[in-house]
Amino acid sequence: MPYFEDIRIGDRRDLGSFAFTAENIKAFAAQFDPQPFHLDEEAGRRSHFGGLAASGWHVAAAYMKLTVANIKREFDEAVARGETPVPSGPSPGFRDLKWIRPVLAGDTLSFASETVAKRELGSRPEWGLVNTYNSGTNQRGELAFSFMGAVFIPRRRA
Amino acid sequence: MPYFEDIRIGDRRDLGSFAFTAENIKAFAAQFDPQPFHLDEEAGRRSHFGGLAASGWHVAAAYMKLTVANIKREFDEAVARGETPVPSGPSPGFRDLKWIRPVLAGDTLSFASETVAKRELGSRPEWGLVNTYNSGTNQRGELAFSFMGAVFIPRRRA
Repeated sequence: MPYFEDIRIGDRRDLGSFAFTAENIKAFAAQFDPQPFHLDEEAGRRSHFGGLAASGWHVAAAYMKLTVANIKREFDEAVARGETPVPSGPSPGFRDLKWIRPVLAGDTLSFASETVAKRELGSRPEWGLVNTYNSGTNQRGELAFSFMGAVFIPRRRA
Repeated sequence: MPYFEDIRIGDRRDLGSFAFTAENIKAFAAQFDPQPFHLDEEAGRRSHFGGLAASGWHVAAAYMKLTVANIKREFDEAVARGETPVPSGPSPGFRDLKWIRPVLAGDTLSFASETVAKRELGSRPEWGLVNTYNSGTNQRGELAFSFMGAVFIPRRRA
């Protein structure tokens, strides 16, 4: 991760893609969101989704997995360059999470994160707050998932 | 689930509680959010969380599990009463998800959902949109988690 000072509005990061399969859709749903249209092809076809559909929380978890993999990769690369890596901060929450289209078995979403705002925090001088627009787009180029994220990022020590 | 017409602003539903343990915190994190403060007690203590902390997505998944359990229970109760159960609809997304306080190993959150708004949909006469305020409160009575949810609910056929 860069320090707060090195982050620029408009920075865009491709996070990679995640393939949703009947198998991983059902496995996630069985653990966390066991509704019929997430567990059974026929129930999915009969539902408003029109097919076996990933839980919305599965889509969010796929985004998170790719984000954490990126954090780890950047951490390791900084260590490899002999730098002290910048630790990632916590998130206070997010806004406007939208499940725009069904994500069905066979769909692959590509996730990206773009910096849309940043500000210093009077109350916590060691951190700044960065706002991101995060999206998941399917293999047909259709936006399926988005939210406005927020994360505390360490500031460079004076 | 009641039909859209039978839902009243101010309706509150206690969803039950979920106990976060070192074991289930680490198991969730290993699968979906493998950051050190979610995986290791010592890393958690050294972090801004001050202890082994549940992933924010784990907190959201616990809410979802309890919500689905409630949907299932109401569905089964309707069947037992000889009624045709009202199927639950999809969610278009949600707003203002807030991770207000760390959820640490040993914490138990009680979740609740309150109806705050409802409206008919011109474009989809078979459904209405219901907005809920959802919260998770810890064993000390402190609000730890909240978001504004939205869900499509079937309307009673004329």
